[in-house]
Amino acid sequence: MNRETSLVPSLSVRGEFPAIAGWHYLDSAATAQKPQAMIDAVTAAYARDYATVHRGVYERSAVMTQSFEDARGAIARFLGAGSPNEIVFTRGATEAINLVAQSLPRVGRDRVLVSALEHHSNIVPWQLAGYTLDVVPLTDDGRIDLDAAESMVSERHRVVALAHVSNVLGSILDATRAADMAHSKGALLLLDGCQAAPRIPVDVSAIGCDFYAVSGHKLYGPTGIGALWGRTALLEAMPPYQGGGAMIDRVTFERTTFLPPPSRFEAGTPHIVGAVGLHAAIDWIGKVGLDAIHAHEAALVAECRSALRGMNDIQLFGPADSAGIVSFAMRGVHPHDIGTILDDEGIAIRAGHHCAQPLMDRLGVPATARASFAAFSDSSDIEALLRGLDKVRRIFS
Amino acid sequence: MNRETSLVPSLSVRGEFPAIAGWHYLDSAATAQKPQAMIDAVTAAYARDYATVHRGVYERSAVMTQSFEDARGAIARFLGAGSPNEIVFTRGATEAINLVAQSLPRVGRDRVLVSALEHHSNIVPWQLAGYTLDVVPLTDDGRIDLDAAESMVSERHRVVALAHVSNVLGSILDATRAADMAHSKGALLLLDGCQAAPRIPVDVSAIGCDFYAVSGHKLYGPTGIGALWGRTALLEAMPPYQGGGAMIDRVTFERTTFLPPPSRFEAGTPHIVGAVGLHAAIDWIGKVGLDAIHAHEAALVAECRSALRGMNDIQLFGPADSAGIVSFAMRGVHPHDIGTILDDEGIAIRAGHHCAQPLMDRLGVPATARASFAAFSDSSDIEALLRGLDKVRRIFS
Repeated sequence: MNRETSLVPSLSVRGEFPAIAGWHYLDSAATAQKPQAMIDAVTAAYARDYATVHRGVYERSAVMTQSFEDARGAIARFLGAGSPNEIVFTRGATEAINLVAQSLPRVGRDRVLVSALEHHSNIVPWQLAGYTLDVVPLTDDGRIDLDAAESMVSERHRVVALAHVSNVLGSILDATRAADMAHSKGALLLLDGCQAAPRIPVDVSAIGCDFYAVSGHKLYGPTGIGALWGRTALLEAMPPYQGGGAMIDRVTFERTTFLPPPSRFEAGTPHIVGAVGLHAAIDWIGKVGLDAIHAHEAALVAECRSALRGMNDIQLFGPADSAGIVSFAMRGVHPHDIGTILDDEGIAIRAGHHCAQPLMDRLGVPATARASFAAFSDSSDIEALLRGLDKVRRIFS
Repeated sequence: MNRETSLVPSLSVRGEFPAIAGWHYLDSAATAQKPQAMIDAVTAAYARDYATVHRGVYERSAVMTQSFEDARGAIARFLGAGSPNEIVFTRGATEAINLVAQSLPRVGRDRVLVSALEHHSNIVPWQLAGYTLDVVPLTDDGRIDLDAAESMVSERHRVVALAHVSNVLGSILDATRAADMAHSKGALLLLDGCQAAPRIPVDVSAIGCDFYAVSGHKLYGPTGIGALWGRTALLEAMPPYQGGGAMIDRVTFERTTFLPPPSRFEAGTPHIVGAVGLHAAIDWIGKVGLDAIHAHEAALVAECRSALRGMNDIQLFGPADSAGIVSFAMRGVHPHDIGTILDDEGIAIRAGHHCAQPLMDRLGVPATARASFAAFSDSSDIEALLRGLDKVRRIFS
């Protein structure tokens, strides 16, 4: 396949990513590389604008507080939230889900409905919080089977917790239908949006879900920050998660009262520069456009799957319309060996269980190889991947 | 006071802090400004070396994993820990204390002994976890009264939780004596090291404490990262705090098993670049030397207190040998007004309750003004502060 025949529209953003020069980075589902605009925002926050937030009586702190809260507003708009106060900054999506699992009042319900393709971060928090899990099976092409879910959901389920996009298969959930399904029995819908938010337009109001978790570093943003979106009434009903500064109303040794959301859930000095960097990343995404990013990644997936489908030693997982993620296996070769050989060729893929051991059990494999795309990916990455797989074959034949 | 007569040794590091040019930043107890070496480390991590950790089968990820774990080792050495595996990365000191409060087995003890000068982050987590607090009083010069503590500690106390250095008064705890006091009744000593770690040499092994919490952004490092040091046997006895990827051994929907510490407590993709930046900050501190930083800050405190003591409208709080922090009040002027007027003169101080409302109650004031120093502070900051206070007087007289 050469560049002239490629159907992949060029986003022409590759040059904005300094860390991938001369490298074929196909591990964006693990973490996205960073555009220069995001890096510059972080640098300026430390080297020019730095101050704490919410407390200083001086101008610089007031300005940084505004920047921090502007980031919250940008995330709210990015997700289609009704208000910035529905956005809680967390360390990442994992903490966002833990926060809900630990803090949501149970109202007499003791079960959570998850799917067979969930990431560990959408399984283990519910287990640690003492919920019993029921598991929605997958369709043959690797989607969450919502027909089955509709027959499984019950009034014992407090939450239906599903990946909006699978981190292994790239399958996109019919989120609106999932919300209706959950609500039909009075359950809440939490969506793990780690993979969806960087790949498809998300509008929590249109979806009708109740909680949405995103991870900043997968959104072309900094590490150590993410966000939970939750409906105001739900957040208001949740007690504090961690205690400390910035989340209290009045502290005495006998009794402490707390601020309303989102402050109530943000104990301690926040990841100020993380918020500023995430804002820059979201602005960058907005400039490129999620529709364009999704179309770009969909074309890359189509090109990649089409090439791999023609190889009789390759097994492809997941649906044809995967959002930017292609998982596969090569007969007779462990995925780790594929990853190691490709690395020698300057190609980074992920090989392993992708923090989804139950899905590996379901697929009947210990691991898969996974190539995942982002806005900065292009056909040259796929060409390199295919050449690399030829080398794997030569070594193992 | 002019520069020639100053007793403050020059550390000559001010030029390494790009964000304070032309500014008198006296709020380092809230958050430290950043040396260029730290900023450069963060920039390089995003713009040149970026990859995820602990999972990638490719070289860049292996190198970043090594950098991440090297940071853990550096923090361990910085604190005098026995092993890097005794260091758990957290969002900050607040989360570190919450982690212990939530996860430490109670062994039949239901009380925590704190002091009257604790930051909210060392009060509220214990309350949220359901402990009853007993409160050690302060000496007249604003130290934790360890004589009183020795008579108060009992076999009902699971933890004695004290600030190693007070964030309001700068008073330095006799930590070794505090450890003996706690252990005399089988209690554990947790030290809130937020203010101590950037100001005085810390050696947890020599102190004999059991847990130590630090905040990266106060250590000249990035926001969004901190660390908990804990004794290996204690960490091993603690169940997971949050669930997710990277902290599991094996996940099924029925039963999940967990990795040993510190991984067990680090669910989700960590703040990779935060760890790298914190390592650079600690290396920078090591190059300057904590003995030199402490001597420098002690001299600034002496100079500042000496000048303020001569003003009969100023009330000074805290001991003469405060570690880098000077809290004061001016008769007839609210601390917020002091802060606002000083801001107009290019001087940043903190005014408020400093997340220590119970201490304000003890001092009998609603708030204090606080000037806090760091390695980059110098006598010009104090001269500016004194000129600024003159202006406050002129406005309010």
